[in-house]
Amino acid sequence: MRPNPAPTNRRPSEEPPLSHANVHLFDADLGDTNLKHLLGGKGAGLTTMTRLGIPVPPGFTITTEVCVDFLANGGSYPDGLEAEVAASLASVEGQVGRRLGDASAPLMVSVRSGARVSMPGMMDTILNLGLNDETVKGLAQQSGDPRFAYDAYRRLLQMYGDVVMGVDHARYEEVLGQLKKEQGDARMLDKDLSPEALQELVKRYQAMIESEAGKPFPQDVQEQLWGAIGAVFRSWDNERAIRYRKMQGIAHRWGTACTVQAMVFGNMGETSGSGVAFTRNPSTGEKILYGEYLANAQGEDVVAGIRTPVALTAAAAAPGHEDRTLERRQPDVFAEIVGHCAALEAHFGDMQDVEFTVEQGKAYVLQTRTGKRTGRAAVRIAVELVAEGVVTPEQALTRVEPGSLEQLLHARLPTPDELLAKGVKPLASGLPASPGAATGAIVFDADEAEAQAKEGKTVLLVRRETSPEDIHGMKAAVGVVTATGGMTSHAAVVARGLGKCCVAGVGAFDVDYRKRQLRVVVGGETRTFGEGDVLSLDGSHGKVYAGALDVVAAATIPELDQLMTWADESRRLKVRANTDTPAGARTARSYGAEGIGLCRTEHMFFADERLEAVRCMVLADGEEGRNHWLDVIAPMQRGDFEAIFRAMDGLPAALRLLDWPLHEFLPKTADEIASVARALGDSADAVRARAEAMHEVNPMLGHRAVRVGLTFPAIYRMQVRAILEAALAVAGEGVTVHPEIMIPVVGLAKELEAMRAIAEAEAERVFADAGTRIAYQIGTMIELPRACLVAHQLAQHAEFFSFGTNDLTQTTFGISRDDAGRFLPTYVDDLELLSADPFARLDEEGVGALIRIAVEGGRGTREGLKLGVCGEHGGDPASIDFCERAGLDYVSCSPPRLPIARLAAAQAALRRRD
Amino acid sequence: MRPNPAPTNRRPSEEPPLSHANVHLFDADLGDTNLKHLLGGKGAGLTTMTRLGIPVPPGFTITTEVCVDFLANGGSYPDGLEAEVAASLASVEGQVGRRLGDASAPLMVSVRSGARVSMPGMMDTILNLGLNDETVKGLAQQSGDPRFAYDAYRRLLQMYGDVVMGVDHARYEEVLGQLKKEQGDARMLDKDLSPEALQELVKRYQAMIESEAGKPFPQDVQEQLWGAIGAVFRSWDNERAIRYRKMQGIAHRWGTACTVQAMVFGNMGETSGSGVAFTRNPSTGEKILYGEYLANAQGEDVVAGIRTPVALTAAAAAPGHEDRTLERRQPDVFAEIVGHCAALEAHFGDMQDVEFTVEQGKAYVLQTRTGKRTGRAAVRIAVELVAEGVVTPEQALTRVEPGSLEQLLHARLPTPDELLAKGVKPLASGLPASPGAATGAIVFDADEAEAQAKEGKTVLLVRRETSPEDIHGMKAAVGVVTATGGMTSHAAVVARGLGKCCVAGVGAFDVDYRKRQLRVVVGGETRTFGEGDVLSLDGSHGKVYAGALDVVAAATIPELDQLMTWADESRRLKVRANTDTPAGARTARSYGAEGIGLCRTEHMFFADERLEAVRCMVLADGEEGRNHWLDVIAPMQRGDFEAIFRAMDGLPAALRLLDWPLHEFLPKTADEIASVARALGDSADAVRARAEAMHEVNPMLGHRAVRVGLTFPAIYRMQVRAILEAALAVAGEGVTVHPEIMIPVVGLAKELEAMRAIAEAEAERVFADAGTRIAYQIGTMIELPRACLVAHQLAQHAEFFSFGTNDLTQTTFGISRDDAGRFLPTYVDDLELLSADPFARLDEEGVGALIRIAVEGGRGTREGLKLGVCGEHGGDPASIDFCERAGLDYVSCSPPRLPIARLAAAQAALRRRD
Repeated sequence: MRPNPAPTNRRPSEEPPLSHANVHLFDADLGDTNLKHLLGGKGAGLTTMTRLGIPVPPGFTITTEVCVDFLANGGSYPDGLEAEVAASLASVEGQVGRRLGDASAPLMVSVRSGARVSMPGMMDTILNLGLNDETVKGLAQQSGDPRFAYDAYRRLLQMYGDVVMGVDHARYEEVLGQLKKEQGDARMLDKDLSPEALQELVKRYQAMIESEAGKPFPQDVQEQLWGAIGAVFRSWDNERAIRYRKMQGIAHRWGTACTVQAMVFGNMGETSGSGVAFTRNPSTGEKILYGEYLANAQGEDVVAGIRTPVALTAAAAAPGHEDRTLERRQPDVFAEIVGHCAALEAHFGDMQDVEFTVEQGKAYVLQTRTGKRTGRAAVRIAVELVAEGVVTPEQALTRVEPGSLEQLLHARLPTPDELLAKGVKPLASGLPASPGAATGAIVFDADEAEAQAKEGKTVLLVRRETSPEDIHGMKAAVGVVTATGGMTSHAAVVARGLGKCCVAGVGAFDVDYRKRQLRVVVGGETRTFGEGDVLSLDGSHGKVYAGALDVVAAATIPELDQLMTWADESRRLKVRANTDTPAGARTARSYGAEGIGLCRTEHMFFADERLEAVRCMVLADGEEGRNHWLDVIAPMQRGDFEAIFRAMDGLPAALRLLDWPLHEFLPKTADEIASVARALGDSADAVRARAEAMHEVNPMLGHRAVRVGLTFPAIYRMQVRAILEAALAVAGEGVTVHPEIMIPVVGLAKELEAMRAIAEAEAERVFADAGTRIAYQIGTMIELPRACLVAHQLAQHAEFFSFGTNDLTQTTFGISRDDAGRFLPTYVDDLELLSADPFARLDEEGVGALIRIAVEGGRGTREGLKLGVCGEHGGDPASIDFCERAGLDYVSCSPPRLPIARLAAAQAALRRRD
Repeated sequence: MRPNPAPTNRRPSEEPPLSHANVHLFDADLGDTNLKHLLGGKGAGLTTMTRLGIPVPPGFTITTEVCVDFLANGGSYPDGLEAEVAASLASVEGQVGRRLGDASAPLMVSVRSGARVSMPGMMDTILNLGLNDETVKGLAQQSGDPRFAYDAYRRLLQMYGDVVMGVDHARYEEVLGQLKKEQGDARMLDKDLSPEALQELVKRYQAMIESEAGKPFPQDVQEQLWGAIGAVFRSWDNERAIRYRKMQGIAHRWGTACTVQAMVFGNMGETSGSGVAFTRNPSTGEKILYGEYLANAQGEDVVAGIRTPVALTAAAAAPGHEDRTLERRQPDVFAEIVGHCAALEAHFGDMQDVEFTVEQGKAYVLQTRTGKRTGRAAVRIAVELVAEGVVTPEQALTRVEPGSLEQLLHARLPTPDELLAKGVKPLASGLPASPGAATGAIVFDADEAEAQAKEGKTVLLVRRETSPEDIHGMKAAVGVVTATGGMTSHAAVVARGLGKCCVAGVGAFDVDYRKRQLRVVVGGETRTFGEGDVLSLDGSHGKVYAGALDVVAAATIPELDQLMTWADESRRLKVRANTDTPAGARTARSYGAEGIGLCRTEHMFFADERLEAVRCMVLADGEEGRNHWLDVIAPMQRGDFEAIFRAMDGLPAALRLLDWPLHEFLPKTADEIASVARALGDSADAVRARAEAMHEVNPMLGHRAVRVGLTFPAIYRMQVRAILEAALAVAGEGVTVHPEIMIPVVGLAKELEAMRAIAEAEAERVFADAGTRIAYQIGTMIELPRACLVAHQLAQHAEFFSFGTNDLTQTTFGISRDDAGRFLPTYVDDLELLSADPFARLDEEGVGALIRIAVEGGRGTREGLKLGVCGEHGGDPASIDFCERAGLDYVSCSPPRLPIARLAAAQAALRRRD
């Protein structure tokens, strides 16, 4: 009798056997069965390829149902399983021409788990099963490579001992270390061990396993096989896997399948080898086979980089290496691979990344998966696949990761990985606050930036943090980097609006304004940079490099327009832009904006010639003084709005009334104070005292937005008048205007009611003055948790809601975006408390729950309430997917992200439809 | 035929008449009918008094149902109403012995509205109805006072013309003004008009009404009556009333009743008069009749203060005035009044404020209502009413307004109204941040306060705002006043904890530290106060007075203990205290605390000798340095906890781990920086640079609490160790300890999970070191909207939730308590956007909605989850009522508010039970 644990644990026979087969060969016909559910992802993939006629090493899969049954019944297998496995194994042996445990022609198999969704690294795998003290000799002889054979055996011992017999990994390290020491070099590499040393290692591993586990490594290959199968099933229940499933929402009852597959070897001489083929060029998308091949090598050798592979095709080979390509060496095999690649791409409807092994002239495909690609390639491939009739336009839309479009739309540096490969390490890391790249000489203040830019210099503005006074410097610089602040800090928001690249919150930066120095601690050592020193920024990845790096210009590819057309046909969500300038509005239209979702009117206040008038307005002593300066500002505002309305002819524009706390506009330097005092005819002391009195401890939660609108109504009245006068003026020119007046930071229904009444009264005065009217809407930003909770009341006074998810995230989490840099990166990267920065990706559990409450409340009161998102999340694909599911009407984002938003909205709609 | 609008508008006869009477005399027997619903508050009150045998002027009420019907049927009355009214009127005429429209003995009636709840000033009233050109002569003759008769008539014309005929109020003013001018003195008072002038005025009013309304004032008294009834019913539908009902949640369908009542006159000679009687002394609660009487006068004369009333009783009369009291003048009438008062008090079970009129020797009660009283009187009356068997202890509990206890528990100034009556106006107003009163010389910084207090001076600390460095000065001062900050600003919170009175956020204060001056703008004029000038603070009302005022000491009355005992028997909510010191803990127990709900451990860090160690810890360069200083601090913390545990022997104590951002502890002055640098052996520049790097833009939303706990775990580990070592130590002394470790500002389940793991690991180390264990709980503050939304997850890692409603209010509203002073008072007082400061009274719609979500989520996960509130709201009666309804387990408040909380909790429980 074989000492096989399975048959001895058999289920009582009174229970009926499962109604269908428990084991399926890869070439079994399972009809319409959901292969992934029954066979797991791996088994399903191999079965699918086999069905397509692709040669995969033969094998079989024990179903997920057996796993469920096995775990539910205390580790006993269903009746008849042993026979099914035996029959399947015999079939495999027949196809390969080797037999498990046959010393002269030993079959080796891999035993792998595979659930219906991928759980990378969570469960166990055993390779080279079938080796024992006898068969290893056969393998050595057959391969002519004893080193290979004993290396394979010791790997089996290690994996099997660990996974099946529970011997701690560290014990193997100890044995190996001891052996290396005895060989005279404790630091030698595994690959330098002689065949004899490996043979010795195999002995010692066996002895160690027996002493640790209390029983020897099984020489019986059937016992090996059943031990491995049991371990795979049990691994579904290990703690790590349970935790992972909980985190990912994977059901425990799904179970894992167990796939047993013949191993093939690419290192069996010169007619063997391993390679990887992309069905299209993953960089450009061009339709040519693209890949690498290494003769007489296993797949892992290609990956390990010990030897250098050559191109698959002569055309792609380095000059002089043409004859080493697979195309020239083994044209038949190459032709086969080309055929398999074409078949796989046609079947999966996407560019494939195919791993294959040639064993003594016979090609096997080991695995195929969707190939990774650049954004540029993704677009071209998707569009060409439609042209070739392989996929529909809707399918093509799902082939492009929206975020990958960023590479097309901005100038960029090589990726950090590419640079690292060339030995270029970043000086420091921060947040990818505004995409793109730039190289320039650093300056530490906005005036200097502007002065040097006027002299024709290319400068980067380096600040601890930026404030409204820095905007002219940000405009003058090619990029901005800050030491503090998050994804929605002032620097980040303004840089995105300006289309400048920006890295924010570089914690390692110590910016010394006094000495005009930037100190960076790198690996315990402090590096110092002075004004004029050159840095390079990668705003797409949040990296800062010392010195100048080559910047790759933004790409323009014709396929993008086609893809965008399809996206526009598929999406339900409208897409608007966040922009404050006529130029921005025009850019936004060219990127496909269907309106302005957020025009931050306060940004208009910072133009040089106006800032002082605004400061005077804020600091004027009393209402009369304030009104005087409002009269000075009003025509400027009206002019801004006219230009924006013209640019958005025919499209709606949501104009947010003043949002910032007044103190943001205060003069800070003595010069600024003196200048304001002169303009006001007041003493500098008095002005300084008033400015000090406006200081706020937590300005984000302070006297801002509608709170200013209600306590100093003249300001909002001026803005409403400017908007409507501008609308009337351009309407007179034949422009179609849809003004949406947006009241920010509302928390109370009565606030909105009162503010609306003030705005409507002013509107009536404007119309009376003009002798004509124009249609407009009044709505509110939803930025506070309370606003979400009373949305049913707010909707009585609002024609639209625009979710200001930046501020809503701040208040829901109680985290200031300006101060988050001190702990949020640690939360996301080190402690893994959050899967993403909630200022970049909308937090569905918290912020999303509030948005859903608000949507329900708002629409409950006003059926056709228009709903949009105008926070930074409006340009994030995952957040856009939420917006689609939550039933919003539009998203709004910075102009350069519009293509991303359009594609993401289309994908979200398609996902929801399915 | 009479030109009566009612009968001509009769409903079509095919509709069935209402099934019961539409008109009820005051002495009608209505059985168990809900009188207020049917007759409105006024009608019900008069009917109830009549039933009790109290003589009220006779009358009848037309039901609310008629009003509803009238409005629903376009202003037509139910069939038969005319006859019912006529019959009831006849009955009234019979009782009074006068008839409506009878020129020789004219009856006059009032026609008043009255809904089931009071809507003060919202609907209309007409007095003196029944006067016309003929009856006015009869009244003049009968009263012997033509001036009185024509004055009554012109008042009728004015009210009727306005209410029924829609003549604008201003028109009467014009006519009257013109007449006065003709009389030679445009500024003469109404009372100085001669009878002839009044007669002329009546003529002119009639002419004006006819010209304005297009028809004359009706001489037909029946037309007058029906016009008034219709106007009363229609007033239910006026815009003002609709808006009021919406605001107050009063249902439109309730309708108003209309009460018609004979008028009686106290000005019909020396046997007539008017008075007010309190059934007990409203200041002291003593059981004696207390009131005033004015012979030959109408009630409004008493109110108007034209003549001075005298006491009701001889005992209470000013010396020499005894004979002018009602007791002496009309002993029989007095005895009647005494009897009525006793009957009314017995019936309503509470002290009554009774208005009465004596008409020619016959006493009528016009109105009775629950009498207003001081806190001291309220307690005494409630307890004595039980002793007298009038009410049950549970009823007695509802007789005391919890907030009124504050007067008993703190020293106080006379109320602002009392002071105003004496001509003392406040210098400025702020928020009543911490109750009590104080008079002292002002100082502008904490060191000065301490120095002068040591010299024996009584000082008030005046600051723009306070910070932790000011605590020693706050301790030294008798009171604190700040120019900015709200009910939960630093100054407010600390002052309450210290039991000092505090007025916060006095917007009119301009504090100039440099000049050591306080400037206050009063009525456009600036007053300046220097160091040493004396101010007085009323922390209970938020007033600041110039100069010294007499402070009334806190009262101690034995009845309070009895009331508290009853409260404790009735309440379900437990009551805990927010306190950080052993002394505070002992005080809390004496006030009835059942545990500590919030011990803010960071307050312990501010004692003089520790602050520097804490600063060094915060600013130490690297982990090792930090740990060194933590070791210095640890024994101090342990000592604090031991003392608190001893004081709370047997009761639970929730100890909140460090909540504040580290930057709160940074040194600010050059001296402080130098001192820290010396202690750290570091350069002042380096220390200053590190301190600057820790600056936060919005500290409330910054790197604080659990965020510090997770990024610098050594700090929380030290605190956990100190808590548990202290617990073990005092347990060894025989003290019973229930430590609750509270983790603040949690927003993510994983934050709490990770922090709990760190705390538990430290606890295990403590127990291992000690060789013994002790039970403890770990829970979290719920202070962020997100925490409420994911409470179901948090409850997996928490044995208790404590709602930190201060911070929760801040984040839900997006309002910083420190900065709210700039607009929140305007919101509450001027714009009426909020009915109360949400930092003082829990906002049920927003914050309350989140709490309910959290309660449901938390208890859904963990059934017995302990829930409490430890924000300032824990001491506010309305908020406590919410806590009862939301099913929380306890509230926690500052020690002096504990009696208020106990009473409020009892009332809430009784309300909920009903």
